[in-house]
Amino acid sequence: MTVERYGELGSAARILLGPGPSEPDPRVMQAMITPVVGHLDPAFLNVMNDTRDLLRSAFATANRLTVAMSGTGSAGMETCMVNLLEPGDRAVICVNGAFGERMAEMARRTGAETVIVRAPWGQPIDPADVEEALKQGGAKIVAFVHVETSTGVCQPVEEIASCARAYGALSVLDAVSSLGGMPVRIDEWGIDAAYSGSQKCLGAPPGLAPVTLNDRARERIARRKGAVQSWYLDLTLIENYWGEARAYHHTAPISMVYALREALRVAAAEGWEARFERHRRLGRALQAGLAAMGLELLAPREYRAPVVTAVRVPDGVDEAAVRRRLLAEYGIEIAGGLGELKGQVWRIGLMGYSCRWRNVVLLLSALGAVLRDLGIQASVDEALSASAEALAAGD
Amino acid sequence: MTVERYGELGSAARILLGPGPSEPDPRVMQAMITPVVGHLDPAFLNVMNDTRDLLRSAFATANRLTVAMSGTGSAGMETCMVNLLEPGDRAVICVNGAFGERMAEMARRTGAETVIVRAPWGQPIDPADVEEALKQGGAKIVAFVHVETSTGVCQPVEEIASCARAYGALSVLDAVSSLGGMPVRIDEWGIDAAYSGSQKCLGAPPGLAPVTLNDRARERIARRKGAVQSWYLDLTLIENYWGEARAYHHTAPISMVYALREALRVAAAEGWEARFERHRRLGRALQAGLAAMGLELLAPREYRAPVVTAVRVPDGVDEAAVRRRLLAEYGIEIAGGLGELKGQVWRIGLMGYSCRWRNVVLLLSALGAVLRDLGIQASVDEALSASAEALAAGD
Repeated sequence: MTVERYGELGSAARILLGPGPSEPDPRVMQAMITPVVGHLDPAFLNVMNDTRDLLRSAFATANRLTVAMSGTGSAGMETCMVNLLEPGDRAVICVNGAFGERMAEMARRTGAETVIVRAPWGQPIDPADVEEALKQGGAKIVAFVHVETSTGVCQPVEEIASCARAYGALSVLDAVSSLGGMPVRIDEWGIDAAYSGSQKCLGAPPGLAPVTLNDRARERIARRKGAVQSWYLDLTLIENYWGEARAYHHTAPISMVYALREALRVAAAEGWEARFERHRRLGRALQAGLAAMGLELLAPREYRAPVVTAVRVPDGVDEAAVRRRLLAEYGIEIAGGLGELKGQVWRIGLMGYSCRWRNVVLLLSALGAVLRDLGIQASVDEALSASAEALAAGD
Repeated sequence: MTVERYGELGSAARILLGPGPSEPDPRVMQAMITPVVGHLDPAFLNVMNDTRDLLRSAFATANRLTVAMSGTGSAGMETCMVNLLEPGDRAVICVNGAFGERMAEMARRTGAETVIVRAPWGQPIDPADVEEALKQGGAKIVAFVHVETSTGVCQPVEEIASCARAYGALSVLDAVSSLGGMPVRIDEWGIDAAYSGSQKCLGAPPGLAPVTLNDRARERIARRKGAVQSWYLDLTLIENYWGEARAYHHTAPISMVYALREALRVAAAEGWEARFERHRRLGRALQAGLAAMGLELLAPREYRAPVVTAVRVPDGVDEAAVRRRLLAEYGIEIAGGLGELKGQVWRIGLMGYSCRWRNVVLLLSALGAVLRDLGIQASVDEALSASAEALAAGD
């Protein structure tokens, strides 16, 4: 092997406007290079305590069991599934996009019987359909996605959660794309278990999965018949490491925990409500601009999340070619469609530190310019005016 | 919540002489703050390619399936277990320390029938015992730890691997503490699957688990009857993300991959053989110094790993109090004992960038000073002389 062929890391310095990872605040990057200490060092245990407290604040919960799992968002999803389900358990899973599908796949791999409640990709789940599924009886959990990252659709969280509770099932919420950018009120909404990822609206690099479970969910785990199928994601062991016992389980990703703590500190200093408002207003401004440019937004207005927007690709346009040009000519990353929407939509994220007015303006201008160059009718003037108007109106 | 109580991260700046995490090279810390890009950005896909190539060089393998799993070393262990085992499979697991125990626990959670080959903690596994277990027939894997981090014992890897192969079982090697600091010759030794962690002799922060499987192991996965119980650790999906297909699976921990790539680049530039020799010579120098100080080393000389050394705590000494003083007065981290050795040993690591002569001298001097202060006979003069002599002799 010739070592010389592996040069220094280039600095691509993208403007990250896909649905995560978002661009971390410079303070977060700085925190990440704090000297590494041992995973049982008292200094690090304090960092874990702070991170847990700040995560409780992000989730608006008093849940004792609130931790950052040592993996990415999907590890958070798997954590909830493997701890809360056992072979033969019935699980109601709401599927209207790629991440609902993923939940169902993970639930199946626990040996649970899955009852799928579907809505078309781009539409929200109907709580009445959830109730219909629950009427069959015996469901242990109802799992659903707050903001479906593949479509930008926001689900009616409270209705689904209260429906689950009425039938004695635990509600399991995917808050990967929403946490830190939209209200996620775990206690007020009666959510029993939720997970997220560090790299979206929380504004840290990818690598950690915040997870919170209330005592109702903890008791379910305590009453399991068999061991959790994953040792790495076994919450009873994890709780002993994050809690008072400090029992060694695995070596936490120290530098990532530094980054998450700082991202949470930055967010809490901004104020959660102010942060949600920033995401809401800039998301609406972006969406107004895109619509004014003549593009069709996938999600219906009342279920449209501000943090990730799916836009239909105009007929005859090669969506990947447009993304390649945005990346090459402007250094802007947006995402393409997943699953059945592959080739049909672009997904634009405004998350965390990436969620700034200048990024909205740049994205609208760059996308407009590329589309016009391809012969598509798209006025950047109209987009920017509509966007500024929406921002001023604050709706 | 009062945000003000969460201050800026302190800089503990420890000298990390426990069995991992080790202190990363400053170049590795610098690489970690390279701007975050998307997980499907062509720039990042190149970083993944480089990392995979460099990992092949670290493992001395041509294995196509060589990746860094998005979790810590234990996630690497679980990856091997859940992909290679199915319910009812027979697994021979070698246990002579905490990490062998962990392997057995993970194997049991797959539903496999485990056959445990034991040796006392502090002693190596006897390949004859492995053969005895294999004679029962039907074993799908033989799993064992290269360097048992809980005892500092090095196993006879080649004998166990060839024994496994003779009986048609796959050999699964835990190279968490050895990779990057000692020869780990996957292809030459005929190892079918191996895993490691980023934070030990490879010299990156914790957070990634290098894993390599040969085609024999890949075929075993291809012939599975059921799905792998973990979606997050499913190697067939992971291979499609790291390989040509580039199929989205999860959002890789971008900053950690930057760090691992740089750590591997630094290691490869030093030269693997030179790096192994540095670890070997400084490890022997440390051990000579500890012995000259009158301390008893746990592992027998011929099975003593250079990278982590377990030392018996002198009678009547509170081992945790000694570690607290080393941390408070010198900023040095060493570890205590795990499991049945809790309270009985200290574990001292010399790994990666932490493995330097000045750290050997400081550790011997500081430990000697603390022990003398507690009334234990321990000459730092004799320790440093013996250590320097061993280093000069190069044995």
